[in-house]
Amino acid sequence: MSDATKKRTVTRLRGGQWTGKDDMLVVEEPLEIRLGSERFTVTMRTPGDDFALTRGLLLTEGVIASNADIGQIRYCDMGEAAESDIPNIVTVRLNTPPAAERLWQRTLMAGTSCGLCGKAALDAVAMQTEPLPSPASGSLSPETLLELPHTLRRRQEAFQSTGGLHAVGLFTASGECLCVYEDIGRHNATDKAIGYGVEQGWLPWTNPEPLILLVSGRASFEITQKALMARIPVVCSVSAASSLAAELAELNNQTLVGFLRDTSMTVYTGMERIGTHSAASGAPPETGR
Amino acid sequence: MSDATKKRTVTRLRGGQWTGKDDMLVVEEPLEIRLGSERFTVTMRTPGDDFALTRGLLLTEGVIASNADIGQIRYCDMGEAAESDIPNIVTVRLNTPPAAERLWQRTLMAGTSCGLCGKAALDAVAMQTEPLPSPASGSLSPETLLELPHTLRRRQEAFQSTGGLHAVGLFTASGECLCVYEDIGRHNATDKAIGYGVEQGWLPWTNPEPLILLVSGRASFEITQKALMARIPVVCSVSAASSLAAELAELNNQTLVGFLRDTSMTVYTGMERIGTHSAASGAPPETGR
Repeated sequence: MSDATKKRTVTRLRGGQWTGKDDMLVVEEPLEIRLGSERFTVTMRTPGDDFALTRGLLLTEGVIASNADIGQIRYCDMGEAAESDIPNIVTVRLNTPPAAERLWQRTLMAGTSCGLCGKAALDAVAMQTEPLPSPASGSLSPETLLELPHTLRRRQEAFQSTGGLHAVGLFTASGECLCVYEDIGRHNATDKAIGYGVEQGWLPWTNPEPLILLVSGRASFEITQKALMARIPVVCSVSAASSLAAELAELNNQTLVGFLRDTSMTVYTGMERIGTHSAASGAPPETGR
Repeated sequence: MSDATKKRTVTRLRGGQWTGKDDMLVVEEPLEIRLGSERFTVTMRTPGDDFALTRGLLLTEGVIASNADIGQIRYCDMGEAAESDIPNIVTVRLNTPPAAERLWQRTLMAGTSCGLCGKAALDAVAMQTEPLPSPASGSLSPETLLELPHTLRRRQEAFQSTGGLHAVGLFTASGECLCVYEDIGRHNATDKAIGYGVEQGWLPWTNPEPLILLVSGRASFEITQKALMARIPVVCSVSAASSLAAELAELNNQTLVGFLRDTSMTVYTGMERIGTHSAASGAPPETGR
């Protein structure tokens, strides 16, 4: 993670005292992703794990269906890029023509007339992927879910100290942590975690046991959409979810959990995946969905 | 703020008990901004204050130089848009040709060869605006700055209850709150606050007294860039700043403060604007910048 932080001298006020000291700041740099010689997108990201970010982004934007669609992925080593301290251009050669040629935003922008609304965003996703299979009952225990934020935090503490990064982790139904990635952008951290699973070959997810994606911040439409493209059945957030994130999750049989902290959580959709007869739960839910 | 939240039935775990209840979720919907009949951009935002968002975005993207450049701004009332519950298309008629026709991202994408890097992002901003004038010494008191997050939080509590929104406020050097805006996207909340000042005619800022922008989350490159386009000399964040945000602020004589909480703060750049001989500070800074 050496490229992810940068030392800077700052002036700090603590308890009425001003002192100068060295601080570690999270690095933010643009990354350009090219398909062949064509520029596909530019994102402001924290350097590191750029190939994972690229694989994840290409999957979540519908450009590839699996890792097999990627022929070669490398940093550009021509021209000025060859001399740059931090490589900021990734070039991808695809084995197959892109599964979709547009970002969902562009699909949304291209496909709507004066009736643009949240429904159009949901429709744009529906054009790219099917709903998840209906969930099996009670395949997740609340205790396992409640433990995930602690695991994420422990993994974060191990590799950064800036306080400025979002974290995203992938976990099995039994709570095993498969990976944790960090980035200044929550969408980038999500793409990095998904890209790792794509490279390993287990994303898109096809196993009947649920896979869980946990984000350190809010769950927006973009996060649930990315998880859906990777066929991840469960999205958890330590903070709030948006209305459109919940609507997308519900339409697609995805379980969406927010405010996952200490001994509590809020289940927005897909409650049937969560077992309620375990030790942590005193009573079955009054309403389930 | 009635369009900003939406009721949803959720299942909540608290203290070992599952209960069904109604919860308020923050609304996320796409907003399309058109210049005449041309689509300019689509952003996922929380509905409300869309004209402020539009004015702010057009200023921070370099399309307009002041409110005088806007001839008319209204919701699209044609076709399906006329029947939509939440209006999601804003049409702007400009009085003058756009000051710049591209988003900075596009400038960045168009202007770079294989040497894409943070420097290119800084250069793209330099093409759009000048550095701020050199600051007068000690025009801000630390006590005033430390009070701002409390004011922001009080204003937030007054108008939302979802826990899912970013807030951005604008404050005078004496701590007077000029406005607070909320949105699911920090960049949108920033544009809404700036757009309010644009409409009121005091942004871009030309007064020698510093104006302060406070964000409830992290200070990224995008936030300092937007503040710079509105000529706002001081950017404060309750969380961390990125390396590129600090580099942009330093190049442009902007004061950048992070981790502004309780009795402490971290000053990344522009320390000379902050007076250190006031009651809160026991000693002058060992290093200043």
